[in-house]
Amino acid sequence: MNIGIIGLGLMGGSLGLALKKLSNKYNIIGFDHNPTHTNDAFRLNLVDRISTDFNEIKKSDIIILTIPVDAIISVSQNLLNIPKDCTVIDFGSSKEKISNGIPKKIRKNFVTAHPMTGTEKFGPSAAIEGLYTEKTMVICDIEKSADYQKGIALGLFKDIHAKIVFMDAKEHDRHAAFISHMPHAVAYALAQSVMKQEDPKSILALAGGGFKSMSRIAKSSPNMWEDIFRQNKENLLESIDAFNTEMLLCKKLLEEENWEELHQWMAEANKLHDIL
Amino acid sequence: MNIGIIGLGLMGGSLGLALKKLSNKYNIIGFDHNPTHTNDAFRLNLVDRISTDFNEIKKSDIIILTIPVDAIISVSQNLLNIPKDCTVIDFGSSKEKISNGIPKKIRKNFVTAHPMTGTEKFGPSAAIEGLYTEKTMVICDIEKSADYQKGIALGLFKDIHAKIVFMDAKEHDRHAAFISHMPHAVAYALAQSVMKQEDPKSILALAGGGFKSMSRIAKSSPNMWEDIFRQNKENLLESIDAFNTEMLLCKKLLEEENWEELHQWMAEANKLHDIL
Repeated sequence: MNIGIIGLGLMGGSLGLALKKLSNKYNIIGFDHNPTHTNDAFRLNLVDRISTDFNEIKKSDIIILTIPVDAIISVSQNLLNIPKDCTVIDFGSSKEKISNGIPKKIRKNFVTAHPMTGTEKFGPSAAIEGLYTEKTMVICDIEKSADYQKGIALGLFKDIHAKIVFMDAKEHDRHAAFISHMPHAVAYALAQSVMKQEDPKSILALAGGGFKSMSRIAKSSPNMWEDIFRQNKENLLESIDAFNTEMLLCKKLLEEENWEELHQWMAEANKLHDIL
Repeated sequence: MNIGIIGLGLMGGSLGLALKKLSNKYNIIGFDHNPTHTNDAFRLNLVDRISTDFNEIKKSDIIILTIPVDAIISVSQNLLNIPKDCTVIDFGSSKEKISNGIPKKIRKNFVTAHPMTGTEKFGPSAAIEGLYTEKTMVICDIEKSADYQKGIALGLFKDIHAKIVFMDAKEHDRHAAFISHMPHAVAYALAQSVMKQEDPKSILALAGGGFKSMSRIAKSSPNMWEDIFRQNKENLLESIDAFNTEMLLCKKLLEEENWEELHQWMAEANKLHDIL
């Protein structure tokens, strides 16, 4: 099967690596508007070959869109004349605007998914083979995809050993705001709050594992996250409000020296790990 | 040399493990008010033997206080009659109240330090051998320690391969608020904000690496952190204000759909990693 991967960064590159492990089931063609990315992807052996011809990619059996979420919507406008048996899969981190933004004519061709995996790194050199192994793949609004495309996508996700969860795009976006998008805002804010101090270098000289793991995703690409924040603005604002409410409660308890309630607040937070 | 470790949790237990690696330089005696901890510490081979006699511990050449920060101050009141050549080292996470709270009579016996390492786990079973290896050990107000005690402490820290940084206790507490104490408040708030949603289990089913690494320290012990928050209240409040200001800026830019400035804000946060 020919598979065209549009976007050869962390997500697309890692998918190429994972699929190349399967002996010749897929013939992987890479496409990226950035020539450095295509060169790197080929050199790093993430794809079988590179194409610079978008029309050739359109003839693939499967097209993967591993590009920023706004680009997913705009590229979908250029796929209007794909054949009926072409399967398009996107990996966008916000889903409702994508699910509703794909042209009606080819909506059944699409399977819109969100792999709950990643790192703070980006570009082809960030690709890692096991990125999707045993990780959750959320498939949204599956009733809008044709059965044929659903089968192709599920087969591909099985091949990369992802764990499937089906979800309404609207519900996904609310959940993703809490579990991923708001935490990115928090990491950026944490980094900013330290960087704006008088002597950030002296402060950061003391950084241990806790700070490092909390600020890791503050390294994430603004290009990617600006689009996600835009597409999931309302849910993100709701989750930021929920988070800020907790920070203000913590501040209030500190100011009041209400140690008993502060202790209780921490103990309740501990319970997260009974679930997670 | 006899070394008495008071407090056999993650920090004390890991110190015991690291020192046991050095062939017989130290004879390690463990002490803990919790009998389950002493049993576990002995069974896990973290110490050479256990003592239940505080007076015996007081006769050690070196006494280590790896207990919550309030307990460090109260236990120091019971060490008034230690010999002149006894060295007491505490590993508290806040330092100014400890440095000023040790009885004057034995202040020269003390070396007050803060190892910038740890995990979210606690108790003797959390102990790991390499916890201090190549990690920063901040020594505060060293001019208040006698030269003899300074030499003993530096020798011990060299033995466990820690990297030494000297710092004023006041400066340490401000830095630690930003790098460690406020991030703990943020992690607790993040956990709380998700736990208070309608269906936290469905949300957490989607958690990827980013959320997991950001909420990890929300598992930390309320017993320990209540004390730290109390001792470093003023600096913690200042750092929480700095952080909340960034969260409110992020919210404002989102509400105004000021994508350009939001992008810039993220890009500036990225710069943290040029330093860290």
